[in-house]
This record gives sequence, structure tokens and C-alpha cells, in this order.
Amino acid sequence: MKIKEFYPDVMRHKRQGFPEAIYAPGKTIKQIISVASKLLKGEGPVIVTRAEKSVYGKLKKKFPKAVYNESSKLVVLKKGNVPRSKGYICVVTAGTSDIPVAEESSIVADLLGARVERIYDVGVSGVHRLFKHHDKLVKAKCVIVCAGMEGALASVVGGLVGCPVIGVPTSVGYGVSFKGVSAMLTMLNSCAANVSVVNIDDGFGAGVIGSLIAKK
Amino acid sequence: MKIKEFYPDVMRHKRQGFPEAIYAPGKTIKQIISVASKLLKGEGPVIVTRAEKSVYGKLKKKFPKAVYNESSKLVVLKKGNVPRSKGYICVVTAGTSDIPVAEESSIVADLLGARVERIYDVGVSGVHRLFKHHDKLVKAKCVIVCAGMEGALASVVGGLVGCPVIGVPTSVGYGVSFKGVSAMLTMLNSCAANVSVVNIDDGFGAGVIGSLIAKK
Amino acid sequence: MKIKEFYPDVMRHKRQGFPEAIYAPGKTIKQIISVASKLLKGEGPVIVTRAEKSVYGKLKKKFPKAVYNESSKLVVLKKGNVPRSKGYICVVTAGTSDIPVAEESSIVADLLGARVERIYDVGVSGVHRLFKHHDKLVKAKCVIVCAGMEGALASVVGGLVGCPVIGVPTSVGYGVSFKGVSAMLTMLNSCAANVSVVNIDDGFGAGVIGSLIAKK
Amino acid sequence: MKIKEFYPDVMRHKRQGFPEAIYAPGKTIKQIISVASKLLKGEGPVIVTRAEKSVYGKLKKKFPKAVYNESSKLVVLKKGNVPRSKGYICVVTAGTSDIPVAEESSIVADLLGARVERIYDVGVSGVHRLFKHHDKLVKAKCVIVCAGMEGALASVVGGLVGCPVIGVPTSVGYGVSFKGVSAMLTMLNSCAANVSVVNIDDGFGAGVIGSLIAKK
Amino acid sequence: MKIKEFYPDVMRHKRQGFPEAIYAPGKTIKQIISVASKLLKGEGPVIVTRAEKSVYGKLKKKFPKAVYNESSKLVVLKKGNVPRSKGYICVVTAGTSDIPVAEESSIVADLLGARVERIYDVGVSGVHRLFKHHDKLVKAKCVIVCAGMEGALASVVGGLVGCPVIGVPTSVGYGVSFKGVSAMLTMLNSCAANVSVVNIDDGFGAGVIGSLIAKK
Amino acid sequence: MKIKEFYPDVMRHKRQGFPEAIYAPGKTIKQIISVASKLLKGEGPVIVTRAEKSVYGKLKKKFPKAVYNESSKLVVLKKGNVPRSKGYICVVTAGTSDIPVAEESSIVADLLGARVERIYDVGVSGVHRLFKHHDKLVKAKCVIVCAGMEGALASVVGGLVGCPVIGVPTSVGYGVSFKGVSAMLTMLNSCAANVSVVNIDDGFGAGVIGSLIAKK
Amino acid sequence: MKIKEFYPDVMRHKRQGFPEAIYAPGKTIKQIISVASKLLKGEGPVIVTRAEKSVYGKLKKKFPKAVYNESSKLVVLKKGNVPRSKGYICVVTAGTSDIPVAEESSIVADLLGARVERIYDVGVSGVHRLFKHHDKLVKAKCVIVCAGMEGALASVVGGLVGCPVIGVPTSVGYGVSFKGVSAMLTMLNSCAANVSVVNIDDGFGAGVIGSLIAKK
Amino acid sequence: MKIKEFYPDVMRHKRQGFPEAIYAPGKTIKQIISVASKLLKGEGPVIVTRAEKSVYGKLKKKFPKAVYNESSKLVVLKKGNVPRSKGYICVVTAGTSDIPVAEESSIVADLLGARVERIYDVGVSGVHRLFKHHDKLVKAKCVIVCAGMEGALASVVGGLVGCPVIGVPTSVGYGVSFKGVSAMLTMLNSCAANVSVVNIDDGFGAGVIGSLIAKK
Repeated sequence: MKIKEFYPDVMRHKRQGFPEAIYAPGKTIKQIISVASKLLKGEGPVIVTRAEKSVYGKLKKKFPKAVYNESSKLVVLKKGNVPRSKGYICVVTAGTSDIPVAEESSIVADLLGARVERIYDVGVSGVHRLFKHHDKLVKAKCVIVCAGMEGALASVVGGLVGCPVIGVPTSVGYGVSFKGVSAMLTMLNSCAANVSVVNIDDGFGAGVIGSLIAKK
Repeated sequence: MKIKEFYPDVMRHKRQGFPEAIYAPGKTIKQIISVASKLLKGEGPVIVTRAEKSVYGKLKKKFPKAVYNESSKLVVLKKGNVPRSKGYICVVTAGTSDIPVAEESSIVADLLGARVERIYDVGVSGVHRLFKHHDKLVKAKCVIVCAGMEGALASVVGGLVGCPVIGVPTSVGYGVSFKGVSAMLTMLNSCAANVSVVNIDDGFGAGVIGSLIAKK
Repeated sequence: MKIKEFYPDVMRHKRQGFPEAIYAPGKTIKQIISVASKLLKGEGPVIVTRAEKSVYGKLKKKFPKAVYNESSKLVVLKKGNVPRSKGYICVVTAGTSDIPVAEESSIVADLLGARVERIYDVGVSGVHRLFKHHDKLVKAKCVIVCAGMEGALASVVGGLVGCPVIGVPTSVGYGVSFKGVSAMLTMLNSCAANVSVVNIDDGFGAGVIGSLIAKK
Repeated sequence: MKIKEFYPDVMRHKRQGFPEAIYAPGKTIKQIISVASKLLKGEGPVIVTRAEKSVYGKLKKKFPKAVYNESSKLVVLKKGNVPRSKGYICVVTAGTSDIPVAEESSIVADLLGARVERIYDVGVSGVHRLFKHHDKLVKAKCVIVCAGMEGALASVVGGLVGCPVIGVPTSVGYGVSFKGVSAMLTMLNSCAANVSVVNIDDGFGAGVIGSLIAKK
Repeated sequence: MKIKEFYPDVMRHKRQGFPEAIYAPGKTIKQIISVASKLLKGEGPVIVTRAEKSVYGKLKKKFPKAVYNESSKLVVLKKGNVPRSKGYICVVTAGTSDIPVAEESSIVADLLGARVERIYDVGVSGVHRLFKHHDKLVKAKCVIVCAGMEGALASVVGGLVGCPVIGVPTSVGYGVSFKGVSAMLTMLNSCAANVSVVNIDDGFGAGVIGSLIAKK
Repeated sequence: MKIKEFYPDVMRHKRQGFPEAIYAPGKTIKQIISVASKLLKGEGPVIVTRAEKSVYGKLKKKFPKAVYNESSKLVVLKKGNVPRSKGYICVVTAGTSDIPVAEESSIVADLLGARVERIYDVGVSGVHRLFKHHDKLVKAKCVIVCAGMEGALASVVGGLVGCPVIGVPTSVGYGVSFKGVSAMLTMLNSCAANVSVVNIDDGFGAGVIGSLIAKK
Repeated sequence: MKIKEFYPDVMRHKRQGFPEAIYAPGKTIKQIISVASKLLKGEGPVIVTRAEKSVYGKLKKKFPKAVYNESSKLVVLKKGNVPRSKGYICVVTAGTSDIPVAEESSIVADLLGARVERIYDVGVSGVHRLFKHHDKLVKAKCVIVCAGMEGALASVVGGLVGCPVIGVPTSVGYGVSFKGVSAMLTMLNSCAANVSVVNIDDGFGAGVIGSLIAKK
Repeated sequence: MKIKEFYPDVMRHKRQGFPEAIYAPGKTIKQIISVASKLLKGEGPVIVTRAEKSVYGKLKKKFPKAVYNESSKLVVLKKGNVPRSKGYICVVTAGTSDIPVAEESSIVADLLGARVERIYDVGVSGVHRLFKHHDKLVKAKCVIVCAGMEGALASVVGGLVGCPVIGVPTSVGYGVSFKGVSAMLTMLNSCAANVSVVNIDDGFGAGVIGSLIAKK
């Protein structure tokens, strides 16, 4: 059988304020281009997630305006024309290894109109590093916390601020980190009532939610 | 050893916009009263969660203004004087068994100032029931979805609306529902990017987050 | 020790109406050819499952009539002479990444005599795409639903139709999708009573069952 | 808040050929009666599942025609007027402890119009007991296999018959039976391609599916 | 068969510096008395753990010097004559519900000669409460941290002090706290290199280890 | 630091009737040769397990009498001079993919003196294949059953014979076979009381136990 | 429906050398008596397992020769006339809490003709207690090791003896003992090649296997 | 976005007595050099963990004094000037495959000032090997036990000595060793009260804790 063309949800950005993203793993360049071409006709930014550098190279030929962020593996094919939020969100990481996930959140939230403040490498094994940023944190509309290993940072941040905190467990760690599951459990059990959680390494989802809150 | 008095976080409502709640299970009436007495001196509502009816009976004697909601097992000792939000949030359930958790969210969000619209018993085994409420859902500031068993409702709602969706997995079900774990996994894996998740049966947390978003 | 020849269950198609398939992973070309040669003497189609393209290349030399479907990785060595069903089954996917599994179901069911209608890429993050196919779905003898991530589509379909629904969880997803386990749990917990489930990515099994129902 | 009346899916039997069942655990008698009263206005049988004897006693007062099956804990409030299938299904158990689940399947399938043959206590620790029933099994339209502990019976039956087999893992066992999870895994991994699986102890679901197949 | 007398490891305190404790659950009073009578002939304290109040009542009759701590459910039948350590250990809890486990550690460590400082109810949802105790913590020989839910406190303490930290996950929490498993995973994944962990609710073990370190 | 020489347990065969085996994965050729050289001075056979063909090639140069079995990846460096048992054991597999594990058992048991009868490819999806071997099975001293996927064969064999059955779950399968865990659970839950179980793919251990029973 | 009589496998002792046991939990007295009456007509002992004292009381009235062992909860209705083995087996426990399981093994093995030596309370926290019994252990035909918590004793015994060791994990422990699962994993991973394992608390199965080996 | 420089916790050794280590996996050489250059300005040793040989090669060019330990994959860039402890610790392994983890502990503890005695390859399948070292063990300040598979050695050592025992589960094993999880569970369930546990393969953490205890 010949699989007919793909029909991405071109209207999603108009309907919901955020677009369908093109998740690259497991798709051929041909499939990505086919989907992207349709999405480019809709509103909002057009984003390819988790794209290896070689994928970007091939997309660049077809879409010369494509821009690549190596850390987060995002390819941005179109920025869209999105109004900027008044308030800002913070994107926080426990360690340096969590930065790729955090960058996915930061860039996506920025593309969707949120102002973003990055606060990286402030984990709880030296918690004084976090407190330096206290004033910035308490004025944010939303804080996204990316942390692997034991993921304790989300609760500590949750106890400081009066806004929603989005926990993004990362797959950083070894042994019983279980590729992010332990960090996820930590965040889901948070004693801070303002913490909710997305899937492991789901920087995209957290960025979307952060931007929706920033723009309220 | 004589354990000294308890020191609840009386300033939390002032600092963060939501109060420390008194989780009743495992505490004696004496302990609950001791903590409550201190919290009553602070700002914001004073809430006891998961209180059996007998616990309420004893609290009522000490705090005659106490009010009890039997479904959610909440005791409200003080309502606080909280300004009301302009926008509203929706609290949605899949089935009737999810209502106690949903009521915890609804009542807590209401106490914290959010306007709340309840949409109960609209699960996906008859999804036409949900679509009747389409217009109300798409104008909400935030939607809280309480669902057990397979928890699929959070994704369906997430695909309809342009605001953050808070998934609350409930412990409703049997066999491989694993007391809410399956519903939680469903929500964490949601293909809708605007869904984040709290702990199983954590109506309180969802209500807090919903109110924080409604008031932005 | 010298392992004696293999004795596949040549009579299975005659006895049960579906043949023993040759699962390629972990078998040498020599072993596949040995087993296939025997099965070709029996009734019904002869199918090699999960065959890489290189495996097909080698089989083609030995069996020039071999046909390959690249998406599902099926090699069909013999089509058999199977009567066609009056009714039809639908094979449905949530996303494009679920298509290889769905194609395994569709092709196998077709080989075993079922008429097959494919309805692909209609997942719940944009559920309006599913409802376009309502009329086709409600007349099917059986619906096979292939979905990864949160697997919610099986329940939504289950609530629409009056025939058995076979859920095929796929290994599509990341993080707590646990390579299909979460989608499987979703389907096993379905609030729709007409849903039963096969192993992750088991398009073959679902195709067999679908054809057995179509032909009743 | 006063929870408004419940609105069960009265049209489900008309729409899908099987009714919404009333799952008794966690519901008050008042709630069951409220839901049942509405469902009695629709088509098809009205069934309460997992009802303790005391629940039946109270329902009997309100609905004098109510009938109780103690083994399966089913209360039948209305039988409906359902045409009988030509073919029959078999309901099979491994041990005597699996009979309550099997009876739920048998009675539900019977209420929905299927002819049912019961073959109980034929588990694999003495597999000769199964083979006595060979002739009856191979002519069935569908076989439901209820088994706990290691749940091996589903595969053995699956290898004998040319119809769909529905595996119902039961919570019978101890230690690493994990309340039916091990039996479920056995059935999902079945080397017989015609086996699909429902939730642990879900005799109701299996009975529904069995009846749908029998009536095709 | 008549089970012969029990032979507890009377020499353990002499050999290892800590005694065999009598774990009460599942033992009859007769068995506890039989074992205790023998252990009283050895060196060191004689301790019954997890004893309900009724068990204590019966032991008190036989051993009039028995002392009971209701919070930790410890019965001390003999204090022993143990030299006191120069340094001290801290026993810290996240919440009030963790106190019973902490008291088991504190009392056991005290009986074994350690000086003990209790710092209770200083969890990370209001982490300023912990920092008040900074000076006391950094001079301790060892810190025992008892915490349930997300168990994040162990890492925060681990990042402050220059001594070994013993994490004791407690079974406090609900939903995906999994009765202490999540808190345990948090502690085992700690980004602070000086944290090691004992079994859930194992205040006894932590107290033993704390005393061994204090006395070095 | 320079790690001193290795000291394998050269006396194990004399003490226990079976030798220490050299598990190849993770060891360098140099380490294997060092250990093997010492073991060759003891009694009993000298066996290297899970050796890739390239490892064998290198060992062959040092030990020219080395023999390799490609299926089981066993290298036999010395056969030993072991008396032969009167009775025999059977080694049984469900499918062809289980043969490498079965061969490890068969060859090891043979080296340790047991007479071995191989009965391969007789799984429950066509259980008539097993019954052909009934007479041979019931006279065995012990039966080793190697099976992956759902592992049901161990219970069926267990119900036929009057000797101990050793279940060896294999890592054959996909999806929820969980690399042998499901087959292991099946065997541990066996309703046949004479089945005990070894680790996944542990053909060596089963062969040792089988030989010990055969020689009693 | 009226469930027909039960048909226990009366010939099992004749066919396999051990009888079908009557597992009491979940059976009514009437059902136990019905099954027992039939089994009493066959060969071998008639045993009811896991019978509460009240169950025994009722059975005693019907079967005056019934004998009860309170520790193991076994009721023996008939001893059978079984020849005694020449060799003996050892049944070993780590702690006193493992004795009920060990007694089930010891009594069952004895009823089936094995001579049994009990070695109780010799766990690895004071491993010198085990070595006192070295001479008895090394002459046994088989050793059954019952241990909970970390279950390490099976490996230590396995390293001493030259016969098969049957590990019986017990549900003794708390926290991450997971009701015996951890002890089971320990035994399945044993570095001693002569250890195989049965289900948690399955003293019956171990006793059967021990007797079969003793009588070879 | 351009990620600003990294700010490692340079003061950690001064504050806590052990330094921040540089975990190599997932970091580029450039990142490692950047972090190392800063840490070299602080006190204490500078250590890169889990560095492949090629990483060492590149670091050696930049830091000519770098020393590599191939077994443990540690690169030591600076030894520091740390006073030596009076007492010593023992580092013990069950098998030869556990040595890389043990070496990480031994080298780290040595760098932090502890005297270290290595006792390798003394696992419980031949427990006599351990007892040869009895006198050395009982005088240690702390014993680190590295063991994979069933991890039973930690309990046996724990029962011999009167000091804290740190269990390091290793990922050595196959099947249900679950890459170290089973060994970890064994150690956490230890019946010896003086055993605490770190993450799987966390030789670094155990070495830190061991040195802290040795220096008390």
C-alpha cells in the first residue's frame, strides 16, 4: 500500500495558541519536509524537535531560513509573528547536563511570545547558588525547573515562589535514576503545592505551558 | 523526649498566595487543633484535608465556624478574605467516582479566589458528553481534569483548549489501574503539549495551581 | 551437537485458519529458508515478519516471488488462496509513527481474507480528525487501534462502535511511555467494555484476530 | 456544592449493542438506584457488577425483580429482550477459584444473547482435563479463558482453536502472582496469535466482547 | 514438631558495639520474653522495636523496669552502661509525620552512647526553617535525615555539611510516594556525595550507624 | 595500584561436584587465560561461558585442545574425567530461539556426567508436539525447560512428570516479555508443584542442578 | 447457574509422586470437604494448606483424624503410606519469622517420605551459627533455605554444599523487602550455581521438590 | 543563546572536606577543561570520573601532570595536600568484575586522606575466602563492600565488624540482576544494622563517605 500524504494539524496554533511540533526521531527527511511544508502555511512558529545536526543540514538546503540550536537540537523553520508577554518566566536547571532540556523550554517559550530569564546550574548540592536569584524568581509568572538525578530543586523553588512551577525531570543520572523516573517521582511527590510535572526531557511541553501562563 | 510545639508555615499564604494545608491522616485531633490555631492567625483560608467525618465532629466543637464538605473530606476553618478572579477555571471529571477529588480542587480554587465551573461525568466512553461543553471549556483560564482508569480525558481536553490543563489522576479503577498509576502515566505521556500533572488524587495541589493561573 | 532440522507447524493454517509466521529477528537466512521451504508446502500464506531490507534481498534470490513491504517489514512468500470476507475491518492509528505496526495488521488481515479500511493519523490531540470517519467506523466488523504515547485513542473509538476493538499499543514515545507499556496500560484500563489488547507492536496478532472476526 | 443528578449513557445499548453497567464499589445505594432507574428506561439488560450481598438486599426492595448471582456478585435488574446467537462461545477456567470471574463473563454474554458453554477447572497442571473438551472448543465462535497464577491455559487453548480467544487474567494466586499481573503478562506474551487480553478480573468486558463476536 | 528455644545473638553488642534488637511484629509475647530474657544476660541495651502499646503493657508486667516511647514504639528493657561520645549527631525531619522514625533513631543512638540533637519539621517547602540550624549542623559528626514524600531534604543537608549524612526514607505520603520508595530513590540519587541510605522507616539502623560514627 | 593475580576457587569441583565457570563478558583474554590456567590444575571440566567466537579464536591459540559450541557460546578447555549417570535428564525448549540456552544446559550437564536427552521446539502453541515425547519425559530424573515469551511450557511439563522440573526463562520475545521477566514470573507462579526456577538465560545453572539430580 | 461438583486430580500422587493439595484461602468449608472427600479415595497424603485454626476446627468435625500444625497452618487429613528415603534433606531458616514457611516444607517433605533435618535461625548477620551445622549440611541430598529480608543465606549455603539448594523467599521484612520480592531476586541472582527458586512463601512446593530429590 | 561559562563549586572541598568531581560522560573536552581549570584554583584534589582513555589522552595534553587509572576510569589532575588518617578503611569486592567500582572508592578515599586496605574477590559462593581477612576487617574504621549479582556480601561483612559498612551495589550480572537493582535491594534489606547504601556503581560516593569516617 502507498501511504497517502500526511495531514498535520495546521490550525492548532490558531485554535490553541501553540503549534504542532515536528518530532524528528523516526521520521525521514522526506516526511519532515512534507509535514513542514504544510505547517508553514499556518500561523505561529514552525519547529522541528530533537533533530540531529545532519537532519538540520538537509533541512537547511530546502528551507534556507532554518536556524539550529545545537544544545536543544531544535530547528526553527519560521519564527511566526507572536506578540511578546509583559511578564517573564524563569527557566532553571540543577546542573549543566540539564541545559539541553532547559534550552528547549526557553527557546520554545520565547518563540511563543514569553519573555524568558535563564538561571542555570543552581542545584541543591550547593543551594546558596539558587538564593542569589531570589528576587528574580519571586517576580516570575511561572518557573520551569529542569533537573535530573534526585530532582529536588523543583520542591525548593516551589517553596520560594507564588506562581506555578513546572517540573521537567531530565534523564541525567545513572543507576537508580532510571533515566529520569526518579526525578519525576520526586517532583510528583513535591511537598510544594504549586508544582506540576511533564514527561521526562519534555522541554517542549514545559515551554508551551510556560508561555500560556506568561501571556494570561 | 517531649516533642515541642509544632511551627506551621504561617506566612506561606502571604509569601506565596496559598496557605499550608493541614493533612489530617496520621495526625491526632490535638495536633490538628494545635497547628490550626496557629494558622488561624495568618492570612488566607485555613483548610484541613482528607478529614473523616468524625474528625470534623471534633473540630467543630473547638472551631464552631468549621464547615465540612463530605464528598471531598475538606474542613474549612476560615475562608479568608480573598479577591475574586475575573476569568474562571473548569474542573472536569471522567466519571462519578472522580468527583471527590474534583470537589477538593473546586473548593480549594474557590477559596483561593478563582471562579470555578464544574463539568462532571463526561468521560471518553461517551465522548459526545464532553463536546456539549465546548464553548465553556475554550474560554477557561485553566482546566483541571480528574480521571481514573485509563485517564484519557486529559488528552482529549488538552487538544480542545488553548490554556494550561492540569491532569489529576485518580485512584479509581481496579486491576492494572494500579490505584491511579496508569492514569498518571497516560497524562504524563499526553500528546497534547499543554497538559501537566500532579500526584494521584491530589485535588488540593491542582486547585492551588488553577487558582494561581486564574488570578494572573 | 548438531541441531536437527526445524519442524514448523505446517498444519496450523488448516487447523486454525491462520499460519505460523516466521519471526525473522535472531534467525539466520539459512534458518528462515529452511522453515519457509516447509511452510510453503502447507496451506495459507507464508509470511516473514520484522525482516530488514537486507534479509528480504537474500530471500528474494531464493524465492523470486517474494514481495516486501518496507514500512511493516513484512516479506510475503506466498499469498495463499483465501476467500474474501463480506464485512470489513478498520485499522486506525493515532499518529504517523504508528503506521508500521498498523500496516503489519492491515497486510496480514488482508492476506487472511479480510477487507481492510485504513484510517491513519487521527489521534486525540485533534480528535475532530477521527469523527470525520464516524460512518465508516460504525459499520466495521472489528476495529484495530494502533497507538503509542498515552494510547487514548482506543477508548475513544471503543465508545463509538458496536464491534470488538483490538488495541495495539505501539512503542512510540519517550520518557515514561516506557516503550509502549504506558499505552498498553491505558488500553487495558479502557472504560469502553469492547476493547481487548495484544502485545506491544504486535500488528501480526491483531491482524490475525481481526481477520477471524471479519470472517465469522 | 450540591452534585446534580447523574446522567448515565442510556443510549449505549442501542448505539453499541451492550449497556453501561453499574459498577457498585464506591457507590451508595442511593446513587445505584438513581442510575439504575434511568438505565431501566433504555434498551438492553440492566446490570450491577461487584455487588455485595447486602447491596443486593437493598436493591431487591426497590426493584423486586432483581436477581442475584452470588459467585459473580452480579445483580440483574432487567434481562432485556435480546435475540439469541446461532453459534456459541466457551468460557473456560484453569481452577475453581477462577469461577467467579468466569461466571461474570458467562452471565453477561448470555444476557447479551450469546449461547454459552462452561468448561471449568481444566488447568495445565493436569492438561488432559482440557483435551476431553476438544470437540466442543474447536466449534466455538470465541473462547474466553479465565486463569490466575501463571495463566498458561490461554496459550494452550489458543493453540487448539481457530477462533479469537479472550484471556481474562484473574487475581488468584500469591507471592509473585502480583494479584493477576503475572497471569496478564503471560497472556499478552502468548505465542498463540489469536489471544487478546482484558483487565484483571474483568469478566464483564470479556463477556461483552464474546457476545459481540458470537452475534456477528 | 516442637520448635526448640530461640538462640539470639547475645554476644553481638560485645562483638560489634550494638545489640540484636527484638523486632516485635509477628512475634508472640512469649517469644519476645524468651528472647529478651537471654539478651538481658549480655552487654549493651535491650530494645524491642515497633511494639504496640498493648505489647508494652504485657512486657511491663514481666520486666517492671521497661520504658516505652509511644511515638517510636520502642520498649527499652535495659539501658546498658555505655560511655557517652564527645561529638554529637543531628537527627533531622522534613515534617511532623516523620517524627516517629526520627525518634527511633534518636533514642537508639542515645542508648548506644551518642549525644543527639533533634532538629524537626524543617522540610524544603519552607527551606528557611533549615538554615536557622546551620551552625549546629556543620559541627555534627553525622546527620540523620528522615523524610517522606519527595525526600529532598537529605540532598539539601548533604550540600551543607562536611560529615556523613544517613538518609532514612519514611513511608509518609500518598499516590506515587509508593510508601517511601520515591523518597528512597531521591536519597540514593543524591547529588551530594556524602549521603548514604537505609531501608524505609529504618530508624533503628540509622541510629546504630550514627552512634558508631559519633564514637569513632 | 596494580591488581594482584586472580585466585579462582580451584577446589570447587572437588568440594561441590561442579566447577567455577569463567564468565567471559567483561573479562580480557589475558584475565580469562590467567584464571583458566589455574582452574586447569584442579579437578573437573574447565568451561568458559558466553564467549564470542573471537574470544574462542584467541583461547584456541593458547589452549589447542579447546572446543567451541557456537550456539551456546561455550568453550570447553578440559572435559574432566567424570563418571556417567545411570538415569538421564531431558532438556526441552518451547521454540528454536531458546536452543542456545538449552544447549548451554545440555552440554554442561553432559560434562558433569549426566546423560542428556534433547527435546527441542515443542511449545504450547502446538502442544501435540510435546506429547509425542511423553514416554521419554516420564522416565527422566529431571527435566530442564527453556522457554521465553509466556514460558507456559514449564507448567505443562510439570503436570506430566514425577521428577523435579527446572525452569529456565529465556530472554526471547518482545514488548512485555521484558527480556525474560514475564517467562520467569510464569514459571515461579507455576501451578505444578515440582517446578523451580533459575535466572533468565541461566543454562549453566540449570545444567549443574540437572547433573546433581541425575547423579543422586 | 449451579456449579457442578469439583473434580480434583485424584490420580496425581499415583502419576507424579505427590498429591494435589487443597489451598484453603478463598474456599468455603463445604468446598474443602467436597474436594477432600474425593482426594481421600486416592493414594498419598491429603493435605490442606494455609488453613486458619477455625477452618481446622470445622474440618476436624468431619474428619476426626485430621491433625493441625499451627505454625505452618497445615491440616493433614491422611498421612498416606509412603516409603521412607535413605538420605535426608535439610530445611534451613535465616530467622525465627521464617519458621512457618520452613515447617510447611519440612512437614510436606516428611509426609512424602523424605527424612528431614531442621536447622533454624542461622542467618548471615551472625554467620558463625550456620557453620556449626557444616557436617550435617554437606551430607544432605538437598537443602531448602527459607529466608526473607535480603535472603542472602541461600547463596552462602549454596557455596558450601554439593547438592541442589531450593531457595524459598519469605515475605518477612518491611520497606523495600517488597513482601519477599527482594529475597526472591537475591536467590535468583545467586552466584552459587546450584540454587533454584520457588514462589514467595511456597513451602509446599519446596517440600515436594525436596522429597522428589531425596527419593531419587 | 550563548551559554555563559560554568561556575563549579570551587569552595566545596574547603566547606565540606571533599571536592566537586567532574563527571565526564556527556561533557565535551572543552567543558571538562573549563570546569577543571577553575577547580584547580581551589583546595583539595581535582578528579574526573568515568573518563574513557581517549578523554584522558586529550586532558593529558592540557594538564601534563594528569594521571589515569584505567580500571576505575579516574583521571587525577591534582592530588591536593591532604593529611593522612590514623585508622584505615577496607574496600572489599565479591568478584573480579566489581574491581573497577572498588578502585574508584579506594583511589578517591586515598586522595581524601584515608588509608585504604583492598580485599578483593572474596564473594559468598566461597565464603572461606572472606574469613581469611577477619582480623584486618574487624579493626577497620569503615568497610566499603562492592558487589553485584545478589550482593549478599554486604550483610555477611556487616555481621562481622563493629564499624559502619557502606554497600556499593554494582551493575555486574545478567537477567534479574536488573543492572544492579537486585544487589541494591539486598543491601538495603540487610539484616545487619550497620549497613547503609549508595547508588549503583557509585564508587566515588562510597570513597568520600569512607574517608570522612576514617578521618573522624
